[in-house]
Amino acid sequence: MGDAEALLAAARRGQPRALARLISLVENGSPQLREVMRLVEPHTGRARVIGLTGAPGVGKSTITGALVRAYRSEVLQVGVLAVDPTSPFTGGALLGDRVRMQDHATDDGVFIRSMATRGHLGGLSSAVPQALRILDAAGFDVIMIETVGVGQAEVEIASLADSTLVIVAPGMGDSVQAAKAGILEIADIFVVNKGDRPGAQEAIRDLRTMVAMASYGDDAWKPPIVETTAAAGRGIDDLVGRLNAHAAWLDASGERARRRVARARDEISALAVAELRQRLGALPGQAHLEKLAEQVASGQLDPYTAADQLVEG
Amino acid sequence: MGDAEALLAAARRGQPRALARLISLVENGSPQLREVMRLVEPHTGRARVIGLTGAPGVGKSTITGALVRAYRSEVLQVGVLAVDPTSPFTGGALLGDRVRMQDHATDDGVFIRSMATRGHLGGLSSAVPQALRILDAAGFDVIMIETVGVGQAEVEIASLADSTLVIVAPGMGDSVQAAKAGILEIADIFVVNKGDRPGAQEAIRDLRTMVAMASYGDDAWKPPIVETTAAAGRGIDDLVGRLNAHAAWLDASGERARRRVARARDEISALAVAELRQRLGALPGQAHLEKLAEQVASGQLDPYTAADQLVEG
Repeated sequence: MGDAEALLAAARRGQPRALARLISLVENGSPQLREVMRLVEPHTGRARVIGLTGAPGVGKSTITGALVRAYRSEVLQVGVLAVDPTSPFTGGALLGDRVRMQDHATDDGVFIRSMATRGHLGGLSSAVPQALRILDAAGFDVIMIETVGVGQAEVEIASLADSTLVIVAPGMGDSVQAAKAGILEIADIFVVNKGDRPGAQEAIRDLRTMVAMASYGDDAWKPPIVETTAAAGRGIDDLVGRLNAHAAWLDASGERARRRVARARDEISALAVAELRQRLGALPGQAHLEKLAEQVASGQLDPYTAADQLVEG
Repeated sequence: MGDAEALLAAARRGQPRALARLISLVENGSPQLREVMRLVEPHTGRARVIGLTGAPGVGKSTITGALVRAYRSEVLQVGVLAVDPTSPFTGGALLGDRVRMQDHATDDGVFIRSMATRGHLGGLSSAVPQALRILDAAGFDVIMIETVGVGQAEVEIASLADSTLVIVAPGMGDSVQAAKAGILEIADIFVVNKGDRPGAQEAIRDLRTMVAMASYGDDAWKPPIVETTAAAGRGIDDLVGRLNAHAAWLDASGERARRRVARARDEISALAVAELRQRLGALPGQAHLEKLAEQVASGQLDPYTAADQLVEG
C-alpha cells in the first residue's frame, strides 16, 4: 500500500494527523498530489461547503465558531479551512483565528486548519478545491471556508462554496462601499453581525434596498439578510435555518450540480494553465529575463517585445 | 501616421480625450496595444508613482483628492487611476469616487480615471502597468493608483508603485487584523486617517509597535506613521513631506531602479503567461472541457487526469 493510500485510509478513520499531512501535501504542491487526488476522487461529493467572507474585523471567526457549535450539536463532523489569500506575505497570520477556536481543539469531530498556498503551482484556485476534496473524502459533513477580505481572490474562494455568507458589520463602510467590493453578486446569504451596535438597522435596510433593486429571475434565490450578534450566540439558529433552506433550494433547483460542474471546470482549467505556466520556466529566453527587465525599465524595449523574446528565445 | 501614433501625440499635447482612448485600448486588451506600447516606451520613466490601498471606508478617495490638491498647488500634473480588482462583478462601481473628485473635473492638469480590466488578457497584472506607462509618457509628474480592499490583487497593484500608502482608520479592525491583510509588508508609509475619531491614537500605537517589532536592515526604509483627517485637510502637508522623503530615499538607495526592474520582470512574465494561456483556448481537448468537468464533479475522474486530457487532447 502506497504512502498516499495509507494516509488517506488513516484520514478516513478519523486521524487528524493524517488529514493534516494530506493538506500539507496540497499546500506544498507535492508531486504525490496527483496520486492523492486519484485516490480521493471516488469518495467525494457528499459534504456541504459553506463559504464565509467579509472585511477584516466583521467577526468571521466568531460566526465560524458559532456555526461549528451549532453543527456539532447535530453530531455533524465539521471541517474549517481558514484561507488567507495574502499568505505569501503573512504566513501563519491567521493564528489569531485558530486561537479563538481553541474551545474545539479537543473535539475529534472538528478539524480546523489555516491554509497557506505559497508552494502550490496552481495557486489558490486549485489548492483550495483540493483541500476541500480531501476533507470531503475524509467524511466531513460540513466544510467551512473562511477567507479574509473582499478582493478578487476571496471572490474566487467564495465561488467554491455551495452557500456563501457575506458578512458585514455596522460602521465598516456604507452600502456603496459594500457594492464596490463585488460582494452582492456572490452572496447567498447576507449576515449583518454585531447587530447590537449602532448602525446595524441602517446596514440591514441598505442591504435590503440593494437586494430589492437587483434583478433576480423568477426561480432564482434571493439572498436573505440575517442579523446576528455572534459573540453572544444571537441569530445563529436563524442563520442555520437559512443555510438549510438554501441547501434545499440548491438541490431542488439543480443549482448544486451546476455549481459543482462549473467549479470542476475552473479547477481543471487552473491545473492546465499551471502546467503551461510551468513550461514557461523552461522557456528558451528565461535566462535573459533579468536583462529584458532592465531594458524595459530603462525604456529601451517595450514589454510585448520582451515577452516575445522570453517565449521564443 | 498611424492611429496609435496620432493618439499618443495628442495625449502628449495634453488632450484628455486622446489619453482616455489610449487607456480604453488597455482596458479592452486591444490588438493595437502592442504598437501603442512600442511608441510609448521611449517617453517613460519620469513619473513618480504613488499607490494608495486600504479597506473600504478608510477614506482613500478623500486622501487621493487632498494629495491631488497639494500637488496641483506645486503646478505638477497629476494622474489618478482608480482600480477595482473586483470589476468583473461591479463595473463602474468606483463612480462614487469619481463624483467625489469632481472639483478637479475642469482642471486640465488632473486626469482621473476608473479602470476596469475585464477584457484584458493579462488581467490586472499587465493592464495597470500599461496604463501607468501611458500616463507617464503623456507627461504626468505624479500618478496615483487607488485600489479597493486589501486582498492579493491589491497587494499586486500596490507593488507597482514607487511609494505605497497603506491607509487605516480607527474602528476598522485592530492591528492583528491589519497584519492579517498582508499590508505591513507593502507599506512605505502608514496613514491613520480620521485622526479625530476615537481609537486613532490606539491605532497609531499599535502600528508603531508592529513596525518596531518588524526587522528592517540598517539601510532599510522604516515606514513612518502619519495621522491625517483628510476630509478637513489636516495632516496632508506632513504626508506630502513623508512622500518626498521616501522619494529621496528611493533615489539615494538605488531602490527606485531595483523596484522598476522587478516590476518590468513581473510585467514581462505576465504577458508571456497570458500568451501561453491564450494558447490554452486552442488546445485539442478544449471542446471536451464541459464533459471533463461533469466527470470530475461526479467523482468519475480526478482533476489532474482531466487537465492532462485538456492539454494533450
